[in-house]
Amino acid sequence: MSKEITSREQDYSQWYNDLVIKAGLADYSAVRGCMVIKPYGFALWENMQRQLDQMFKDTGHQNAYFPLFVPKSLFEAEEKNAEGFAKECAIVTHYRLKSDPDNKGKLIVDPEAKLEEELVVRPTSEAIIWNTYKGWIQSYRDLPILINQWANVVRWEMRTRLFLRTTEFLWQEGHTAHATRDEAEKETVQMLNVYADFAEQYMALPVMKGVKTENERFAGAVDTYCIEAMMQDGKALQAGTSHFLGQNFAKAFDVKFADKENKLDYVWATSWGVSTRLIGGLVMAHSDDDGLILPPKLAPIQVVIVPIYKGEEQKSQIDEKVHELVKELKAAGISVKYDDNDNSRPGWKFAEYELKGVPVRIAIGARDLANNVVEVARRDTKEKMSYSIDGLGKAVIQLLDDIQVSIFNKAKTFRDDHITNANNWEEFVQLLDEKTGFIAAHWDGTGETEEKIKELTKATIRCIPLDNQQEAGSCILSGKPSSQRVLFARAY
Amino acid sequence: MSKEITSREQDYSQWYNDLVIKAGLADYSAVRGCMVIKPYGFALWENMQRQLDQMFKDTGHQNAYFPLFVPKSLFEAEEKNAEGFAKECAIVTHYRLKSDPDNKGKLIVDPEAKLEEELVVRPTSEAIIWNTYKGWIQSYRDLPILINQWANVVRWEMRTRLFLRTTEFLWQEGHTAHATRDEAEKETVQMLNVYADFAEQYMALPVMKGVKTENERFAGAVDTYCIEAMMQDGKALQAGTSHFLGQNFAKAFDVKFADKENKLDYVWATSWGVSTRLIGGLVMAHSDDDGLILPPKLAPIQVVIVPIYKGEEQKSQIDEKVHELVKELKAAGISVKYDDNDNSRPGWKFAEYELKGVPVRIAIGARDLANNVVEVARRDTKEKMSYSIDGLGKAVIQLLDDIQVSIFNKAKTFRDDHITNANNWEEFVQLLDEKTGFIAAHWDGTGETEEKIKELTKATIRCIPLDNQQEAGSCILSGKPSSQRVLFARAY
Repeated sequence: MSKEITSREQDYSQWYNDLVIKAGLADYSAVRGCMVIKPYGFALWENMQRQLDQMFKDTGHQNAYFPLFVPKSLFEAEEKNAEGFAKECAIVTHYRLKSDPDNKGKLIVDPEAKLEEELVVRPTSEAIIWNTYKGWIQSYRDLPILINQWANVVRWEMRTRLFLRTTEFLWQEGHTAHATRDEAEKETVQMLNVYADFAEQYMALPVMKGVKTENERFAGAVDTYCIEAMMQDGKALQAGTSHFLGQNFAKAFDVKFADKENKLDYVWATSWGVSTRLIGGLVMAHSDDDGLILPPKLAPIQVVIVPIYKGEEQKSQIDEKVHELVKELKAAGISVKYDDNDNSRPGWKFAEYELKGVPVRIAIGARDLANNVVEVARRDTKEKMSYSIDGLGKAVIQLLDDIQVSIFNKAKTFRDDHITNANNWEEFVQLLDEKTGFIAAHWDGTGETEEKIKELTKATIRCIPLDNQQEAGSCILSGKPSSQRVLFARAY
Repeated sequence: MSKEITSREQDYSQWYNDLVIKAGLADYSAVRGCMVIKPYGFALWENMQRQLDQMFKDTGHQNAYFPLFVPKSLFEAEEKNAEGFAKECAIVTHYRLKSDPDNKGKLIVDPEAKLEEELVVRPTSEAIIWNTYKGWIQSYRDLPILINQWANVVRWEMRTRLFLRTTEFLWQEGHTAHATRDEAEKETVQMLNVYADFAEQYMALPVMKGVKTENERFAGAVDTYCIEAMMQDGKALQAGTSHFLGQNFAKAFDVKFADKENKLDYVWATSWGVSTRLIGGLVMAHSDDDGLILPPKLAPIQVVIVPIYKGEEQKSQIDEKVHELVKELKAAGISVKYDDNDNSRPGWKFAEYELKGVPVRIAIGARDLANNVVEVARRDTKEKMSYSIDGLGKAVIQLLDDIQVSIFNKAKTFRDDHITNANNWEEFVQLLDEKTGFIAAHWDGTGETEEKIKELTKATIRCIPLDNQQEAGSCILSGKPSSQRVLFARAY
């Protein structure tokens, strides 16, 4: 291998960082907690964006764009939201630099260009958006408003990790306005389902759908729904959230509408988002010690073809065959790369595309050509197969589908094997430390107990699963009565 | 008309604002100088983005993403660039808010959360990107780097106008790194041509390609190439720029590469960008007193169909025919809307879609159906025609093509009619005030004269056209000798 990667067993966390950096997904930057998303990582994000965007449009949403900055007076209007984000806000206080009189060629902040009102760099956009919606909504005819925004947001994080937690990140945030509570609640659940479908069908990532406890709720929400995934180290990753905001923001920004009877009421709201964090989840869920394993539906390169030859004559024979195949695959919408760069040897290329997680690798040599076959290797299982050149296009398309399903099934088996019931505190602690994963346990329903469990074990309640089975029991910590199990885990 | 629009003759500037607001492209926001891009405006931007993005990828570029913030010490590294943008930078100085002890429910900036080094909100990304490239480039094998970024940037503008000049705007910025001066210069011109092709073929906007004078150059560039368009009031609009940056940024950030002979040299650079300003140019160049006129290739809705009927029976007959037509048009990739909302009357809808600039409107009534015809109206000329229902799909597709060409030709005729030679100062001033447009005049080549002309007339040198005809003459202001005419105009 040209690029050494720490193994998962040795150091899972370092393995993750190695993969992200060495596969060319992202790089550290000169800005504390911010990263550079490199072309290969961004191509992955573009594929995710394209699919999600289509799913949003198919459910009736339109894109728009709202300002990056939120004046402090708007930011603080919804008190719980403001309180929740106040500690992690980047604040613009000045609008000009000037030459440093004491230091030629250097600049200083111009004290005369101080803003009258400070601007918060959006950590989320409810405030600026609901202040705007106020001007757009008068009557029920103006509802619903179904808007999504693709944007960057900033949350000043103390401990950052590439993709998983960065000070600036890219995301989409949907912000909808409705005439009734029922409609808003349905929207919240609809978008949760969109996220779950995307995670499972495109990212090959099985997720638990559930609702957050009050402690874990989005600041300013009435209910936060979430999808929770499991990583290979048994830790949970919150992969997307959909919030029913009730009338909280409408009240904070005085957004009322006249219904059909001309009665005024506050507007009902939802918001929902997923971010570049999903890339981190994708990497952690599927990859191995040799590199990324990307689901074919999102892989920037789905098929790579490597020629193995001696001399120009063999090369041109291979070229001819490959060009036909490339044409066929491209026509079927497959992203294919023919790597005939003669600066690197086939073995180096094999390792490189394994590192990059290209789902299917085809090697084609002069002898193969004579036998009318190629060597096909699948990245997920590393299995190598001989395929006839006749009908190769169709066979490869089928193989990509198989890999997509196979990656999902593997992750699902792992996840399902790591959901365990704990019936008392000892079991709970032991499972957390030794088996890891989601632990289904009884909880007395209080924030105090939840907080205490977190202090003692670093485990949090990831969610109360939707349609959770009701079952009488007693809280693993307090012993008080409980009517259902909830899912605990240590989480990213 | 349901929504009153100021006429161009009455107040061109107000006409523009009315259009942008009333057609639903954008809205003012609570943040000084920032706007909200509404769904219809954003759909237009998405169409522009999609096309440009494809053109960038077709010329070998990949997308990536770099941090929003630039540490001050990096920002000031390339002195000319820093000097050029220092006066319009939003500066982040703190990273936390806290409760105001004197004012319950309010927040203040936490003085204890002051950054050691201030962060500049990027006005452009050369600094942060070249600081990153330093880590990516060692040898000629790492070159070229051909990267584009879609992003928001902030420039603290004192006078703002929707789309044309806003404090925050959306844009793309290409940043490329090359081993030779020649390759970088070719890239600069290639991207200028991409912009010109996009403007002319998609926006239907004829542009002059040229190079900027030293005064008008991008801060930090060796050469700035530009495309300049003309608005209906005869003022110019800079629609895109492509900069040859020489080795300026490589020197500022110490980015060297080893060539094939292992000799070290600084890397050559380009950058190029277009922004949401293009939407302003599109509106100003083509629209009329009744609303937007959008080129079919970028219109969010290309065809609208309005039924005219009495009673459910007529409606269902029309529906049936329309659904066939919609299917045919959609299959051909046409964006079509069937507006059978029965809350508004056809006349109101006609005015609304004229306002929104939908290129083709089809009205279909019960009598039309009996005669196997529909009424087709084109937005640009307002011409109404009767089309047979047989073959309607193909005819509409052809009509969209015709409209695209026709809008371009109209703008080109106007533009060409407004390029005038001025041979002395009196002619120059008179043309500027009375005829407006581009004025081709001799200039002595000095920044002082250029500045003086700007002070006296508000006209600037928009560009020195590429392949400009050489012609001896004397400067209209100083009378000194000149070898070519340059294009002056008042500009947005």
